[in-house]
Amino acid sequence: MRQTIQNLEESQIREVANAGLGRSDVLAFWFGESDEVTPDFIRQAAIESLQRGETFYAHNLGLPELRQAIASAMTAKHANHAGATPIAMERIAVTTGGVSALMLAVQALVDAGDDVVAVTPVWPNLTAQALIMGAKLRTVSLRPQTSGPDAGAWTLDLPRLLDSITPGTKLLILNAPNNPTGWTLSRNEQVAILDHCRSTGTWILADEVYENLYYAPSANACAPSFLDIAQPQDRLVVVHSFSKSYLMTGWRLGWLVMPPQMTAAMGKLVEFNTSCASVFTQRAGIVALQRRDEVTPRVVAHLKTCRDTLIPALRTLPDLQVALPLGGMYAFFQLPGHTDSLATAKRLVAEAGLGLAPGSAFAPEAAGWLRWCFASKDLGRLTQGVERLGAWLRRVEQTESPRVA
Amino acid sequence: MRQTIQNLEESQIREVANAGLGRSDVLAFWFGESDEVTPDFIRQAAIESLQRGETFYAHNLGLPELRQAIASAMTAKHANHAGATPIAMERIAVTTGGVSALMLAVQALVDAGDDVVAVTPVWPNLTAQALIMGAKLRTVSLRPQTSGPDAGAWTLDLPRLLDSITPGTKLLILNAPNNPTGWTLSRNEQVAILDHCRSTGTWILADEVYENLYYAPSANACAPSFLDIAQPQDRLVVVHSFSKSYLMTGWRLGWLVMPPQMTAAMGKLVEFNTSCASVFTQRAGIVALQRRDEVTPRVVAHLKTCRDTLIPALRTLPDLQVALPLGGMYAFFQLPGHTDSLATAKRLVAEAGLGLAPGSAFAPEAAGWLRWCFASKDLGRLTQGVERLGAWLRRVEQTESPRVA
Repeated sequence: MRQTIQNLEESQIREVANAGLGRSDVLAFWFGESDEVTPDFIRQAAIESLQRGETFYAHNLGLPELRQAIASAMTAKHANHAGATPIAMERIAVTTGGVSALMLAVQALVDAGDDVVAVTPVWPNLTAQALIMGAKLRTVSLRPQTSGPDAGAWTLDLPRLLDSITPGTKLLILNAPNNPTGWTLSRNEQVAILDHCRSTGTWILADEVYENLYYAPSANACAPSFLDIAQPQDRLVVVHSFSKSYLMTGWRLGWLVMPPQMTAAMGKLVEFNTSCASVFTQRAGIVALQRRDEVTPRVVAHLKTCRDTLIPALRTLPDLQVALPLGGMYAFFQLPGHTDSLATAKRLVAEAGLGLAPGSAFAPEAAGWLRWCFASKDLGRLTQGVERLGAWLRRVEQTESPRVA
Repeated sequence: MRQTIQNLEESQIREVANAGLGRSDVLAFWFGESDEVTPDFIRQAAIESLQRGETFYAHNLGLPELRQAIASAMTAKHANHAGATPIAMERIAVTTGGVSALMLAVQALVDAGDDVVAVTPVWPNLTAQALIMGAKLRTVSLRPQTSGPDAGAWTLDLPRLLDSITPGTKLLILNAPNNPTGWTLSRNEQVAILDHCRSTGTWILADEVYENLYYAPSANACAPSFLDIAQPQDRLVVVHSFSKSYLMTGWRLGWLVMPPQMTAAMGKLVEFNTSCASVFTQRAGIVALQRRDEVTPRVVAHLKTCRDTLIPALRTLPDLQVALPLGGMYAFFQLPGHTDSLATAKRLVAEAGLGLAPGSAFAPEAAGWLRWCFASKDLGRLTQGVERLGAWLRRVEQTESPRVA
């Protein structure tokens, strides 16, 4: 087997979750997934497709009807302003989840040995994919603010990022709104990054799957997107998913927006990776988009309530700094004195019945941090989780701090 | 974009099919797919899963219940003899179709620059995947027999294949029963290949998705498999799919059997490529395996009837040599005097209303050949297709041969 593959880190999140396997008393917030089932009318669309017998191969790039629905939705969000070029369906590929879209883009762009830059901490799949293709990966880390109004927030050192991207850099990988930190790119930062990458000839792979999960005021109810400012021909691939905005994690349905000159190659890559998404799954996607106003605003409003329940509760704990994330569905914070987040996360499962994801899963520099997914149907689970965390911290303080002192 | 990706051939099969788009009068035999819908009780299992709300992420390697059902089915077929080691569920990964299983195996094994050997003609995805990973690909061609009882059949020059595999060869890629030729590996050939690859340290990637579509007498109702003779620790990955044996092409559900020491790495690769197969799709797979005696024997018996309808009919055409395939679902043959199969296939669509796949899609050396998928619910479509082919050949003979002469 390849050494590169053996060296890929196994998921530390699964390592923690495995430690809680079979324990029904654990409040689990480790995975990036709502605990709410896909809305009935979306499931019904797949059921009816199966009943009609739509069990055959489909077009590599997706059903034309779905591609058109995606293109229209993307245009409405990102290219509806005066002078904008509508996002054409020829720029859309339907994929087997957002993760497959990301992998396809990396396959299209990265030769072994290519210089690739990723902004971290980040969902580990984004960096792993480049490594699988043999990239020379460099990371530019966000920096946690230690004081002031943004204390606990991770922010971008833009000049440092731009300095790191040279004409030899093939690809820049970004995920904003960011999993796990909640960091969100501003419009000005996007403009500067796009300008710089145009000058260096660097491709941008923007994982924007959390764009609708955005809690700041905005005209289009979503986070700033590279699609708002880019031209169709820009070296830009933007990845999306039905998972978060439509409660469809297990369906494995996503898409990407690419320059039109990439579409033919992308069709080939889909063929050689998964061939196509199931028709019945795509039918569900079509209905999800048609009736998105019945799903996404409700999901986002509830997630905002979740956020606004969890963050203030966490802030009642002594010495715990946690920033209010503008986007995404995660709280990201340090427990003072607990620097090994994998060990801490395992202890929290065992000793507090609380399941969080360790920051070290997302970058070495986040090793002291913990990620809490607040996508919980029942708000009470969140406050109960904070109570468990607080009680555990008090127990540890009483029994262990003398040894530290 | 990578030059490697731009250089990948677009599907010539789709190129021909596109030439027939919107023409309802074309008898299409170009894709490797039955025209029969998935059995009702398999669809029902997915429907009930959706109704239960199984719309969440699943384990990377597949539902334990499905992995166990696959392991049991594989053991019953390939490791049920005295002294055999049962195939453990720890050696199974559930994948998003057989094509994803193949891609995952290539990602696990092939570094850029690695020496890879493939036996051709073959389904183009198998060679494309190695190229995507940057392999140095060499092909060893089967050879068509021009006379004798095997006239029209493609056979393996075993010594030539073995000579081509050196200690520097990382991977051997084989597909038998073979798409498109119908060539099937014998037990003796498998033993010789396995022995040789053990001595050179070469991995074998065996695409055995057509193993049940086998028409020669056999004890286990399937083609000879490397799993019959290999040890669990051998450098062997065998790929399977629900597509052909269970009429489930559009579901995108497959699996691979690997050495146990590869399982942890494979779990990571599934995570980084597709994360998991949908639970409702996996539920359909479980029911398909549980009730396989109600599906596969009927499918195979019907395909045998299709084969035994098509081949004799084709043999009535003047100068047309076609071998009786032992496995798979394809007739593969030359039309004398028509050496450019892509052009011929397009003419057949336009002038005869007959949709076949061009041999050049599968290897340059098969450029004069045509592939006919005989998986047709209605046998009359096959004989009608042969009539169209015969009439077209006669017209061409009358109008064009003077120019040739």
